[in-house]
This record gives sequence, structure tokens and C-alpha cells, in this order.
Amino acid sequence: MSRSTAWDHPCTSLFTDHYELTMLQAALHSGAAHRRSVFEAFARRLPDGRRYGIVAGTGRLLEGIQNFRFGEDELAFLERNHVVNRETLDYLANYRFSGDVWGYPEGEAYFPHSPVLIVESTFAEACILETYILSVLNHDTAIASAASRMTSAAGGRPCIEMGSRRTHEESATAAARAAVIAGFGSTSNLEAGRRFGLKTVGTAAHSFTLLHDSERDAFAAQIEAFGPETTLLVDTYDVETAVRTAVELAGDKLGAVRLDSGDLVTQAQWVRELLDNLGNTGTRIVVTSDLDEYAIAALQSAPVDAYGVGTSLVTGSGAPTASMVYKLVSRSNDAGEFVPVAKAAKNKASVGGRKYALRKLNEHGTATQELVGIGHPPEDDGNDRQLLQQFIKNGELLPGWTGQEGVIRARERHDAAMAELPSVVRRLQRGEPAIPTVYEED
Amino acid sequence: MSRSTAWDHPCTSLFTDHYELTMLQAALHSGAAHRRSVFEAFARRLPDGRRYGIVAGTGRLLEGIQNFRFGEDELAFLERNHVVNRETLDYLANYRFSGDVWGYPEGEAYFPHSPVLIVESTFAEACILETYILSVLNHDTAIASAASRMTSAAGGRPCIEMGSRRTHEESATAAARAAVIAGFGSTSNLEAGRRFGLKTVGTAAHSFTLLHDSERDAFAAQIEAFGPETTLLVDTYDVETAVRTAVELAGDKLGAVRLDSGDLVTQAQWVRELLDNLGNTGTRIVVTSDLDEYAIAALQSAPVDAYGVGTSLVTGSGAPTASMVYKLVSRSNDAGEFVPVAKAAKNKASVGGRKYALRKLNEHGTATQELVGIGHPPEDDGNDRQLLQQFIKNGELLPGWTGQEGVIRARERHDAAMAELPSVVRRLQRGEPAIPTVYEED
Repeated sequence: MSRSTAWDHPCTSLFTDHYELTMLQAALHSGAAHRRSVFEAFARRLPDGRRYGIVAGTGRLLEGIQNFRFGEDELAFLERNHVVNRETLDYLANYRFSGDVWGYPEGEAYFPHSPVLIVESTFAEACILETYILSVLNHDTAIASAASRMTSAAGGRPCIEMGSRRTHEESATAAARAAVIAGFGSTSNLEAGRRFGLKTVGTAAHSFTLLHDSERDAFAAQIEAFGPETTLLVDTYDVETAVRTAVELAGDKLGAVRLDSGDLVTQAQWVRELLDNLGNTGTRIVVTSDLDEYAIAALQSAPVDAYGVGTSLVTGSGAPTASMVYKLVSRSNDAGEFVPVAKAAKNKASVGGRKYALRKLNEHGTATQELVGIGHPPEDDGNDRQLLQQFIKNGELLPGWTGQEGVIRARERHDAAMAELPSVVRRLQRGEPAIPTVYEED
Repeated sequence: MSRSTAWDHPCTSLFTDHYELTMLQAALHSGAAHRRSVFEAFARRLPDGRRYGIVAGTGRLLEGIQNFRFGEDELAFLERNHVVNRETLDYLANYRFSGDVWGYPEGEAYFPHSPVLIVESTFAEACILETYILSVLNHDTAIASAASRMTSAAGGRPCIEMGSRRTHEESATAAARAAVIAGFGSTSNLEAGRRFGLKTVGTAAHSFTLLHDSERDAFAAQIEAFGPETTLLVDTYDVETAVRTAVELAGDKLGAVRLDSGDLVTQAQWVRELLDNLGNTGTRIVVTSDLDEYAIAALQSAPVDAYGVGTSLVTGSGAPTASMVYKLVSRSNDAGEFVPVAKAAKNKASVGGRKYALRKLNEHGTATQELVGIGHPPEDDGNDRQLLQQFIKNGELLPGWTGQEGVIRARERHDAAMAELPSVVRRLQRGEPAIPTVYEED
């Protein structure tokens, strides 16, 4: 794994809504802050017409929870701005999450109402993590969910993440990580390479060609610097001329040509023919122009060797947030017994009680149902798969979920989860979730 | 301004696409890296049907450019992963931007092809800033552009930014800043409060009510902790019961009630009547349920006192990125003369040459045209307003653009820019840009 620098792991405690801390103050005042509580993160629905979603962000989140501490600077800010009172500041000064966290591991598929993350601790400890937990899960899950549809549409062809410039610089780094979890082969983002050990790739942009007195000069410079195996961008002026120049200069070892504009299907076809006629049967074609899962699907029959995906990946392809919420579903009463709780608010009602989840599989190992037990684990009939894993126990992070190891395992999990879902998940058309979420009857 | 901690200003140099550095290596090899170059950031179009956009991010960006340096950790990563060769690493070790930067200041309106940022330096220095510049501008501008439509729809009523949980934790902080530039009054995001000196607000969520044995207990605890002037969330169970309980406990000093579900127009009307009948004419009504600019407009005639906006703000209300690009438009030749350059790629052609921009105003001070000069400033007929400001001169950051001062000035500039635009910018319906962008004829 790449070496971590100090700011790879910033203090995360102020990535928090003001009201989390005022609630804490009022609950410390009433005494209810110390009631044992169970919070649950879930999505009421998938984005319009999507068949499934892919969980991501957990590894980042778990590291962030370890760094959710209030140091001198944070406390001074809260005091100076009268966010909370002295008693609350004293509580925050000693804050360290000491509870338990379970959830769907990264790379796992999820559906409406899947209990993606479950946090159990005192109300005080679990409540103030809300904003941070949702920020990480909502962003990374949105990206992984879009990325998964893209790698699915690409079949076995490699996808390259190159959307950094279209989103916030830190989102870009997290997006690259989420994309790789959902099957992307590499990223253009160097910080993601450093922080998460991802493979980074890249060669040149149009500006490099324009910088030189001619396209020929530019290609020659690039080939001298990186060898003939490099990828040359061939659409700055005239594509056919560029391809011929590229082959002339690099010979049959030319690694790839990149197309970044125009009708990619038609272009890929004649560029492939041209390359083959020139003897460059081993030169690959990379395409990169505003691709999304639909454009990738449309290129299935074109002779394309790799897809570079930018804007639509980092913006979740129409669904930039996973719309997860974090709800108190159970808490202890004065007698110390857990009581399920739920709000009744119109159009936003939720189901109280602690959740457990199982993916029901048929005799062929294909998923048929997301079975959720309320208050107790649903019965496993032998074929089924338990979905909740424990990430944090008594405040201690359990091994295997974070860092580069976490990403590698999540990527394998994504492959396995996709193989297990019914084939309808490969369809890009809008429709119902691939499997229904069912609450187990008592 | 809030005190900065070390990680408020991280090293920004790896928020960069791999290919920026390989281009650098090839250009160092060919010698073209040292050609003087002018890059321009602009958007080819506004998001579908939008009438205008609002520039944001420049203040963050200018600080980030000062921290765009390659330290030991960054260089070690690049070396270990064979991203670039020794000569390039040596260049990067001494990298410090020494050129000039001009642009549209934050809060300013922009249109298709407005030259939002202009960077002049050597190719080497200006090229490798590309990804970082676009990440910051594309994100923050997308948010400010959506925020501006919301504050416009809200008329004088205050808007509160509360979308942190729906986007990446760092995007959330930048989004709060962009929202305030475009007229939002406050944010829920504490880190944005600390980092940019923004006003933060918040009281309680549904979980606080559910934590207590009854809604009455919860309201009583909150009022004891924060006084009757607090805002009580009244839709956990039954709104009417909650409003009556709130008034009973807090009396006529009750600050506000918050509605977070249901039909807000109807509810706001009868809740207003109920409050008035109970003698609470001074108690305000805050609404917060999945609002966007259209919902805000629909609430114009409802007795609502403030809008809390979340998801749709931080996702740019359908346009999560501003789609800006960063193009080499001019560079020197071997004789040291500047030569305009542009790619001819299909559907992505750009206009070569350095740009200057003027907002043409009529005799009433209303904007009529975005006039762009190529290679020289367009003629000012006396009423017009120069749009480009210098931010960095010979690598030195000029004062007034960054920190809390930058935000305050940007907010004033947004107000002024909006007042100057034709009234069509107040319309939410899709249509053409409010003023045309015109290239001055030679």
C-alpha cells in the first residue's frame, strides 16, 4: 500500500452538521445521550430505474471514524462560535467511538431498504457520526453503482477512470477508488494511486500536439520519450493523417491510438481497418469521448480495446448521490431494554427495529430475494448468504476492510456479487430492482 | 477568518491526471516545455436550458496553486511507480508556478465561451495545473450556479445550505462556500464554518425526538438546552399535535418550527394559521424537504420564512459539473512570437488565441452582450464592464481574492452581477443564455 502522509488521514470530526452537536448538547442535558442506540444507514430507493446498487466507501469511512476526534483546533472553533456549551465541549474532547459497526462490505450489491450500515453505541457516540457516514457512503456508493453498470456494459474490455477534472479534487480521488472496486482497471488520478495503491495511466492531451509545430513533431517527441508502445491521440486535426503518421513513426510496435471525438463506432471501424492494412494488427484503439454506460454498450460490436470514462462516471451517470439516510431504529429505555422506534412523517416513514439481512439464493446459486429480519436474523435455509459483516467491535477496527487490502477484496466481492445476481442486472433499461427486498414475517 | 490548520492547505500537486506529467516529460525531452503558453478555462455551453452560470472556486484554487508543490512524498510516489523519469522528477522538485493568472472573479456571471480563467506561463508550468484547476472550477461553479437560481427563486427569504450528507465530505465543505457566494445565508457544515468563516446553523433531527420517551420530553429537553428561541422539528408524528405541544412548552417566544415532509404549501398555510391563533405570530416556519429551485418557487406564496436546501444544491440541481475545459489557445514559436492554436476535432473545435472579455451594458446598465476579443481587448464604449481581473502576477498571489475576504467580496459581486443581468435570468424555464457571447470582429 502507498505510504500515508499526515493529511491522508485528516481529523474528520467537523465534516458534520451543526445540528448533530446541538442534539448532543440537548441530549446530554436530558440524560438521554447515554441511551444505547442503533442507527441504520439505508436507501429508500435505488436511482430511477436502476436494477441494483453497489456499496462503496466503507473502507474510507472506517478509517475516518478512527480519526473522528476533536482536537484543540476543533474545540476552539466550536467554543469561539458558540456552537455548543462547555459540558458538550468536555464530552467532545474525550470523544472516541467505542461501539460496534456492522454492514454490507464494499463491492456488495444492495437494494432498497438493505441495511447497508448498522451502528450501535450510545446515542451520543452514534448520532454525531451521521453526517460523515452519509457523506462517504452516499458519494462513493453513487460512483460505484454507476461504474458497475459501465464495466458490465464493457464486457471484458478494460475501463479507465479519467473523470478527475469534472468533480471536486477530493471526490475525484474517492471516485477513482470506487470505480476500481466496481471493476475499472485503472485511473488517471495520481493521488488515488498514491493513497489507495491503484494503477494509474495516461499519455498525452491535445495541448501536447498543439504545443509543437506539427503533429509529426509532437508524436515523434512522445515516442522518443516513452517508446513506440505509447498511446497517441489522433484526433487533433485529421484522424487518418494522424494514424498514418503515428504508424510511420512508431512502426508496428505502436501501442494504441486514442479517439476522443466524432462518431466513435464508425471511426473505430475504419481506423481498425487502416491499422490492420498498415500492418499494425497489435495496435489497440482506446476511445474516450463523453462515454457513459449507454455509449459503451453501443460500442460493443465496434473494434475498441479500452474505454476511458470521465464525466458520467464521477457524476454517478445521472445519480450523483445514493440518497442513503441514517435513522435511529432502536434505543434503550430507562429499564435498559431496547425499544424499536420510527418516525411517522408522511412520505418518509421508516421501519423501526434492528435489521439483519440475508441474500436468498436458489438451487443454481442465483439471488432471488433480499430478506431482512427485524429484531432477529432471518432463517438461513442452507443456500443463503449472510450480508452483514462486523467492521468495528468495541471501538476497535477489525482487520481486512481498509487500505489497499480493502480495495482488492472489495473488487473480488463485486465480481462475486454480480455473478450471483439474476441476469437482469446486465440490462441498462429502466425497471424494478433485480430482486425484491422482503421483511421476514415474525 | 478562521484559523487555518495544516491540512486546510494540503499539497495539491497529485490532484492531477497521470498524463499531465507524461506530457511534461515528453515536452521537456523535445524542449517545447519551455515555450510560453496561454491556457484558457471555459465552458462550451451552460447546462441544458440554463440562462447563466456563476463562477466559483477561484479563491480555493488560488490558494491551492500556491500549494501545488512536489515534496518528498509526492516525488517518491512518482519515482516508485515509474510515472516519469529522473529529469522530470528534478523539474518537479523545483516546481513553483511563476506565471500570471487572470479570470472572472468568484460571484461573477458567465456564459458559453466566457474566458473564465486564463493562465500564462511556460507550457510546463501551466499544463500540469490543468486537472486541479478544472476540478475546483467545475465543482464549485456547478454548485454556485444552482445556488444562484435558488436564492433568486427565494426572493428575499433566507436559504440555508444543508446538503453535506449527500455529497463527498470535502465537496460538502466547498459546496457550502459556493452556496454562500451565490446568496445562501448560512450552512449546516461545521468545517465550512471553520475554514471559510461561514455562519453555521442547526438544531435537531427526528432521531432526537425518537430518542426520548415522548415528543414532549424531546421538545422540553431542547428548549431547556437552547431556550424557547430554538427551532423545533414538528413532523416526527402528528404535525398539529407537535405544534400545539411546542407552543405550550416554549410559549410565544418559540423561534421556529421546521417542516420536513408532506405537502409543504398546504402545511405551511395551516401551521401559520395555527401558530397565529395560538398567539405565536412571531414564530417562523422553516421548510426543508428535498427542495430545489422549482419547489422554492412553488412556495413563493406560502407563509414560509426560510428554506433549507440539501441534495439538489450539492448535486448542482441536475448539473453536477460545469463542464469547463482548459485549452491551450496560444503558445510561442522558436522565434518567441505567440501563435494562436486550436484543435479541429469534430464536435469539439475550439477558438484559438488569447481572449479578453467585456460585458456590454445598455444605457440602463443592463447587460446586453458578452463581448470577447481575440488577441486584444474589445473596445469599451464607456458603459461597459471589464470582466478579467488579475489574480496571480509573476507567481505572486494578489490580495483580496482568497480567504474569508474573498468570500465576502464574491457574495457582493454576485448580487451586483445579478442586478445587471436582464430579468430573464429570474426565469427557471429552459431557454437560451440571457445574453449572447459575441466574438469581436477584427
